[in-house]
Amino acid sequence: MIIFREAKREDLERIVLLLADDMLGTGREDVSIPLHQAYEQAFEAISKDKHNELIVAEWDEKVVGVCQLTYIPYLTYRGSWRAIIEGVRIASEFRGKGFGEALIKEAIVRAKEKGVLLVQLTTDKQRSKAKHFYEKIGFKATHEGMKLEL
Amino acid sequence: MIIFREAKREDLERIVLLLADDMLGTGREDVSIPLHQAYEQAFEAISKDKHNELIVAEWDEKVVGVCQLTYIPYLTYRGSWRAIIEGVRIASEFRGKGFGEALIKEAIVRAKEKGVLLVQLTTDKQRSKAKHFYEKIGFKATHEGMKLEL
Repeated sequence: MIIFREAKREDLERIVLLLADDMLGTGREDVSIPLHQAYEQAFEAISKDKHNELIVAEWDEKVVGVCQLTYIPYLTYRGSWRAIIEGVRIASEFRGKGFGEALIKEAIVRAKEKGVLLVQLTTDKQRSKAKHFYEKIGFKATHEGMKLEL
Repeated sequence: MIIFREAKREDLERIVLLLADDMLGTGREDVSIPLHQAYEQAFEAISKDKHNELIVAEWDEKVVGVCQLTYIPYLTYRGSWRAIIEGVRIASEFRGKGFGEALIKEAIVRAKEKGVLLVQLTTDKQRSKAKHFYEKIGFKATHEGMKLEL
């Protein structure tokens, strides 16, 4: 059975492995142990911020997926909350089995419970199947996702 | 001279007018006075969250532009902070004069001061000139921006 829960400190090494187990993440992450201190700091910042949730998917007591949810209050749309989904990963050996869809649907359920009006995410255009994946769940690719590295 | 500062409670009516003074915002916002309570609540939520900043551009003591900046800690990119820019508006009579560019550059400066690695935003594909506007500032449209209304 698949279980969703908030990530704990002891999941962090596994989560960083998941983030790196990805066509784009592999060049961005540092999986050396002990983990780079910045991961610890980011985990702490996420954990203590009530507007951020790091959700893991667990299968047979193993963390097989992760995503981060951020709740943001906006004035637009008559003063409404949005949720942003980021850092979605499913372990490579578990892909194509519906775990990703279940994880995103879990994020949507959590967002609904918080009274969120709009869930949004950006997906790299290099991930050729991702747009269709999210469209099947109900997302619409109405926007350009633009990034600036500092 | 253009001045940038954090929004104050007394700017709120003017900001909501700016949000509505827009091809897409006009159908989404409610400019009736007194303001809908949800705007007050959203303003309060933004103001008391240290990870959210509502920035206004002031010209001759008049608020002529607004945007919201949100700082988010992520595990990805070796545990880094990102800034998200949302709700960018310039009063219609002040458009085409460089205010928008100045406002976005102010947001980028603020993000840099916070040690942010990546600034991102989504822009509706219906805003035909916006993509080019952000590209001139240095943003790259590498991602699909996907939204799901709940």
